[in-house]
Amino acid sequence: MLDLATRAHDHNFRIDPIIRSLLDTDFYKVLMAQTIFRRHRDVAVTFGINNRTARIRIADEIAEGELREQLDHARTLRLSRGESTWLRGNAFYGKRRMFSAAFLDWLETFRLPEYELAARDGQYELTFHGPWIETTMWEVPALAILNELRSRAVLRDLGKLDLQVLYARAMTRVWEKIERLGRLADLSIADFGTRRRHGFLWQGWCVQAMAEGLGDRFLGTSNCLIALRREVEAVGTNAHELPMVYAALTDDDAALAQAPYDVLADWQQDYEGNLLVALPDTYGTTGFLADAPDWLSAWTGIRIDSKEPIAGGEEAIRFWQSRGADPREKLAIFSDGLDVDSVERIHAHFHGRMRIGYGWGTLLTNDFRGFVRNGRLDPVSIVCKVIEADGRPTVKVSDNPVKAQGPAAEVERYKRVFGVGELAALPVIV
Amino acid sequence: MLDLATRAHDHNFRIDPIIRSLLDTDFYKVLMAQTIFRRHRDVAVTFGINNRTARIRIADEIAEGELREQLDHARTLRLSRGESTWLRGNAFYGKRRMFSAAFLDWLETFRLPEYELAARDGQYELTFHGPWIETTMWEVPALAILNELRSRAVLRDLGKLDLQVLYARAMTRVWEKIERLGRLADLSIADFGTRRRHGFLWQGWCVQAMAEGLGDRFLGTSNCLIALRREVEAVGTNAHELPMVYAALTDDDAALAQAPYDVLADWQQDYEGNLLVALPDTYGTTGFLADAPDWLSAWTGIRIDSKEPIAGGEEAIRFWQSRGADPREKLAIFSDGLDVDSVERIHAHFHGRMRIGYGWGTLLTNDFRGFVRNGRLDPVSIVCKVIEADGRPTVKVSDNPVKAQGPAAEVERYKRVFGVGELAALPVIV
Repeated sequence: MLDLATRAHDHNFRIDPIIRSLLDTDFYKVLMAQTIFRRHRDVAVTFGINNRTARIRIADEIAEGELREQLDHARTLRLSRGESTWLRGNAFYGKRRMFSAAFLDWLETFRLPEYELAARDGQYELTFHGPWIETTMWEVPALAILNELRSRAVLRDLGKLDLQVLYARAMTRVWEKIERLGRLADLSIADFGTRRRHGFLWQGWCVQAMAEGLGDRFLGTSNCLIALRREVEAVGTNAHELPMVYAALTDDDAALAQAPYDVLADWQQDYEGNLLVALPDTYGTTGFLADAPDWLSAWTGIRIDSKEPIAGGEEAIRFWQSRGADPREKLAIFSDGLDVDSVERIHAHFHGRMRIGYGWGTLLTNDFRGFVRNGRLDPVSIVCKVIEADGRPTVKVSDNPVKAQGPAAEVERYKRVFGVGELAALPVIV
Repeated sequence: MLDLATRAHDHNFRIDPIIRSLLDTDFYKVLMAQTIFRRHRDVAVTFGINNRTARIRIADEIAEGELREQLDHARTLRLSRGESTWLRGNAFYGKRRMFSAAFLDWLETFRLPEYELAARDGQYELTFHGPWIETTMWEVPALAILNELRSRAVLRDLGKLDLQVLYARAMTRVWEKIERLGRLADLSIADFGTRRRHGFLWQGWCVQAMAEGLGDRFLGTSNCLIALRREVEAVGTNAHELPMVYAALTDDDAALAQAPYDVLADWQQDYEGNLLVALPDTYGTTGFLADAPDWLSAWTGIRIDSKEPIAGGEEAIRFWQSRGADPREKLAIFSDGLDVDSVERIHAHFHGRMRIGYGWGTLLTNDFRGFVRNGRLDPVSIVCKVIEADGRPTVKVSDNPVKAQGPAAEVERYKRVFGVGELAALPVIV
């Protein structure tokens, strides 16, 4: 009863592609892409990979030829008819026709642009130059490819039984985490784990486990393809990329100081409701909230990312109170390096004082820590960030100096303009 | 790429049979069967099921119709050509032609005989009447059917993801046990878990995990079919059934006192080497060893079963020393309700003082304790024992009164004849 056709077909693949669909990306990339498409599509932008876990020499773990094969394969992909239909016909955050016909017509013709790749000092220098609307689309697939190639390099050395035990342990760990989460009152949690996942199939399993284990307390996944296939909600809003490019494009300090609010002003023209969640930390949360226009307090919520979460949540509550809003009607989304311990701690602290959502990323979809020797399956803190816009360097300050980015002189200028004082470094796990 | 043929074929099964081969039994049944075939094949013997975990109402868990279907299916089985070839051609314990042509010619024609089944007070009364050579073959398949039907009754209520998590946890648990065992010096361990396994496929996985995790420290499996398919050693020697029937057939106290040694005398005519392992506890280990003929000290070893293992091992060492044998050249096989804790304890106590082997049973192949509510997958201590021979009740005393069996008056007579004093009860887990 061997399925000879399946077996022959599987052996016909030249490679085992990691990215098999342009929708295998985070929903917020599509949301941001529409905003970029409408206003800044031709800004020349460079994205680049940065491995913040420098002790892990990724270029020693992954063969350059394999990496090129995967990147090249991703470049062959086009939006399929069914995928386009989903974007056009599905309701996102309860709203249909989230995306304009013009944007989707463009997306149907889109292919990922060229890349530049070199290895240096054990790390890959992987960069993407071109129109913002094109290069922005590389972030998630590039990261997913690098992370899954790392996994595969380890899995290749394991026998069938070792693999079974590995996944048995990983499933057990994820399920026990979900059981713990299930004990929290009024939980709302989503999968944000695409970019640094162990692998695509594994992320799919994690989403299924969340959905079955948590029921309607599981909000959905950031991954469009998994959302489509498993018929769960696609979730996400926006990222540092928008203020970073908006800021880089300004010509003076006054315009720079205004740039993060310009992002919000554009965003609220494009989206509404639960998509109105501001990310305040690009140039320091404290200054951002102090200088924010009053209309920001009418937004649905705030995402608390690089700031220590208890401090960040308290700051959000103070902001809403100072503007006359009731924090219990506001939403705080926590999304930085979460695991069950931190979710429990945050929940114990804030439950009942405001609405809370969790975007659970790498430690949902890539927690194989301790399962193989030498931590070879431990996740790394690798990012793909915009580094240049129209020839000017982009800058990120954030609330954690470990995550700062940009030329030192520009970082100092931004800190001055945004009134950012000295910040204490927080450890970055993932 | 769906395999329509496989799918259609799978749906064509009227039932999903638990026993699919007459070799899906323990090797010691085949060894004992040859001895029975040669000397006592037509003794009328009754076997019966006894659930020592009386609080578990098996007849409430398993539908009688399903049980009958499985028993009926087992009765349709005949030794296949390849199975017969394996018994004829394979080397067992290093020896070829372990089984006579006459015995194998008979086995090729054998089918499991009729059964009698009734439910009473939440338990099944399942008995097998007929020639010893036929009824003896029911023990292992009957137990395996009852245990796997219990598992299935629980699994039926679980979704696909629950099932994945269940097996993920079980694999993780087994593998962690094997990793602990792997740290013991000079380990020799075998799978004895057929009769009370969670299921056939699961036992196969456990055997594979033992083989890959322990290499040549894994001696093999008691299950003939798994040994054949996975090309590992088939292991086992003999059980209480032989002295129980030999004892029941005696006409006076003097013959009764001699019966356990008659078993050994017959056994050493049929087998040699590592198959010469005596099971001393049927009517009390202490008296058995005190009265044993000197030639027993030339046997390879002793199996320590119902006695507390440290006390049983010390008693074996004293026996060998008292007969002038060097315990370091002798083999003690421990086989009663073992799990990793007890193996570690026994090993720490005896390692270096004698050769040690472990027959690991139920807590290898059926340790799903705590994985579902109300302990519904916890193993039960269920046995299938010979209860009558030529119209006379059989008796077992053992070293643990919890495991005693037979009419009270007969048990008392046996205890008097074999000089068994008062025994302390030991808990029976499985």
